[in-house]
Amino acid sequence: MKFNINNFLNISSQRSKIVDFQDLDHIDGVSISAVSAGLYKVKRDEVVLFYFRDGANYASVFTQSKITSENVKWNKKIKAKKVYALLINTRNANALTGPEGYNALKKISLDLSLRLTKIQERDEDIPKKISSKELLFGCTGTIGEKFPLEKIKDSLSELVQKIKYTQNKLIWMKAAMGIITTDLKPKLAMAETKIGSSKIKVYGIAKGSGMIYPNMATTLAYIFTDATLSSSVLRDILKHNIKTTFNAISCDGDTSTNDMVSIFSTNKVQNPAIKKFSDKRISNFSKTVHEVLLNLAKQVVSDGEGASKLISINSINCKSEKDAKNISFKIANSLLVKTAIAGEDPNWGRIAMAIGNCDSKIDEKKLSISIGPHKIFYKGSLFEKYDEKKVAEYMKSQLIEIEVDIGQGNKNFKAFTMDLTKKYIEINADYRT
Amino acid sequence: MKFNINNFLNISSQRSKIVDFQDLDHIDGVSISAVSAGLYKVKRDEVVLFYFRDGANYASVFTQSKITSENVKWNKKIKAKKVYALLINTRNANALTGPEGYNALKKISLDLSLRLTKIQERDEDIPKKISSKELLFGCTGTIGEKFPLEKIKDSLSELVQKIKYTQNKLIWMKAAMGIITTDLKPKLAMAETKIGSSKIKVYGIAKGSGMIYPNMATTLAYIFTDATLSSSVLRDILKHNIKTTFNAISCDGDTSTNDMVSIFSTNKVQNPAIKKFSDKRISNFSKTVHEVLLNLAKQVVSDGEGASKLISINSINCKSEKDAKNISFKIANSLLVKTAIAGEDPNWGRIAMAIGNCDSKIDEKKLSISIGPHKIFYKGSLFEKYDEKKVAEYMKSQLIEIEVDIGQGNKNFKAFTMDLTKKYIEINADYRT
Repeated sequence: MKFNINNFLNISSQRSKIVDFQDLDHIDGVSISAVSAGLYKVKRDEVVLFYFRDGANYASVFTQSKITSENVKWNKKIKAKKVYALLINTRNANALTGPEGYNALKKISLDLSLRLTKIQERDEDIPKKISSKELLFGCTGTIGEKFPLEKIKDSLSELVQKIKYTQNKLIWMKAAMGIITTDLKPKLAMAETKIGSSKIKVYGIAKGSGMIYPNMATTLAYIFTDATLSSSVLRDILKHNIKTTFNAISCDGDTSTNDMVSIFSTNKVQNPAIKKFSDKRISNFSKTVHEVLLNLAKQVVSDGEGASKLISINSINCKSEKDAKNISFKIANSLLVKTAIAGEDPNWGRIAMAIGNCDSKIDEKKLSISIGPHKIFYKGSLFEKYDEKKVAEYMKSQLIEIEVDIGQGNKNFKAFTMDLTKKYIEINADYRT
Repeated sequence: MKFNINNFLNISSQRSKIVDFQDLDHIDGVSISAVSAGLYKVKRDEVVLFYFRDGANYASVFTQSKITSENVKWNKKIKAKKVYALLINTRNANALTGPEGYNALKKISLDLSLRLTKIQERDEDIPKKISSKELLFGCTGTIGEKFPLEKIKDSLSELVQKIKYTQNKLIWMKAAMGIITTDLKPKLAMAETKIGSSKIKVYGIAKGSGMIYPNMATTLAYIFTDATLSSSVLRDILKHNIKTTFNAISCDGDTSTNDMVSIFSTNKVQNPAIKKFSDKRISNFSKTVHEVLLNLAKQVVSDGEGASKLISINSINCKSEKDAKNISFKIANSLLVKTAIAGEDPNWGRIAMAIGNCDSKIDEKKLSISIGPHKIFYKGSLFEKYDEKKVAEYMKSQLIEIEVDIGQGNKNFKAFTMDLTKKYIEINADYRT
């Protein structure tokens, strides 16, 4: 374990120049707790609770993998109008754990809902009896290992006892660090916007640095807002914004069994009532959600296992967005492209090779390839002013921007990935040891 | 450059225990030459000529990439009844080189065909005027660099002068080493069979250790036989056998612009005339071609860039062969699976994750996963006798066999790949330096 709460100030001083976490503050209606359940050998927080004392409207997108974790199955069955808690554990993915894994969640949800109901009775004027079907679970870690039911259950008492009703950057950091696995950095992002004249906060945290390739949702990310918005409007906002954010990133081309992105609204700000996603008064809010999601998604890629560079790949002038996305990801997922960039080698031929593996037709005479501000291949031939030395110099930067002009239409898609280094192998060859 | 002809004996002594090259001998109708054209900084052979003095029937399969090299374009246009030569160069892929790259092949073919015609006039009773349209080209190396026309043209005189009309293992080794790029070992395979009562030789060489993922053909491989077989029968035999050999391997999931597998028959053995692939008298020959192709394909994977282990992945009891192939390659191309195996970690959860990313539905309750002789996951739960220590011991071997039983039908597909090591990154981050 590289992190515990004690060195977060140290982390702050190491923020990278490209994309890094932001400090989050208080947001009404969200309460947070994080404790250790002894799941890792080294002591760290592994169980994180988001408690919505007055409930939250919610929407989620999940992995498209044909094998999904037990918590994803659980979450898909939740039909409650509001949810009251989100419990996240790291170290164990609760995937391929079968009925035993699912029943573990049942037991935890029963225990946790009883404890939260007691808290309601203690704190609220009109206490709510919280049902076990009003809780969501996020799980991440190793697949196929027995789910540590007892350890997590044993931690619930302390977890509930330590709930913080007022947040500050420290507790957000604790939460963000409590959900990470091989991540080197916590991922937090925030932005403020307005619905009508009401000021609204949009906060988010995420985790993930391996097994990351979008197939709808990717990795774990949770967005919180104090706006008053229905679950159905939240769903439309999430679906609209996931495409170009968490569905536009890839670290290693592997999709997890546990991917989950959720948005929660605590309804604490009495903004104008929004019935539909098409309501124009919501468009700034939607853009803000996009901003926070993209920020988190970039933080995930920048912290991709072993990453030394963030790479953006913009495929432009394609016939369809589908073609553009396909081309961008062929490049993003090519080991040869990613290793060349790790080696700071402007080996653009590998970019061309990766383009060639796409599903659509390519006309070499219309194709152009740029790296950063440098045109390299222009409409079928090497660009006359191409200077490999200049591109080699550019390759030393931490952010590498690739643009591929297919010259067949007007649709674009930008994907984000990272380079592939020896460190990646090191991390993944020794993951469980 | 790790190899030159002088250390081939040294290589012989280093043959791996799993799959390695075989020694080839004389085969009637094939003549070979290999010289240096000064394409690499360190002196080595880079231009290899196969000369068929009496012509050869032929068939090829090429890359399915949407961007193909100029030599693939050239070869696809060749409609000659017989070809008289195959010229292979390494170091430069002649891809994304445009009309200039294509014209270079034109110039080389004109020059070479004149030189070979002179050889015909010198050696043959009925000399054949060889046309530039009776030559095939194989190119491999860096994409997008200017094709070294002059250097290759300058080498043709020596190349033709040094043609060996009788082969032995030394000249075959020279040819096999003359076509490699980042390969650490030459790839040669042979087998003998019969058509009717006629003894037939099937010899082959191949190259490739990166940018290898099947999309019809993969990498460069050339098969030679002294049988008398028409080009159309050769085509059917090649198409039939490529599916489970070169189309069943993946090193890095990247498909090259230059992939090419060809088969040539010199018609020196007067076997019974075979009109159709369906003729039963050809079935042993077809199996022998399969054996040689599979042997070469395994040699390619075993020598995959940075490989320390050969991995076979057999997906069994699938609904269709397409599903089986899709699942096998999801596993074969997963960085997380490949790095776990490099780390000798029996992290079978990653195999499950990779299965989950397939295109078909998976029923966890029917799914079983074995590594080597060890059942791990059996029909929805951890196998009761699963002993991680035993599997960890197995992971130390050089050959790792994974079997995935989907339990939904009776179709199977076995794919071959290698592990992903730091060495891979090293090779590919520094490829051009």
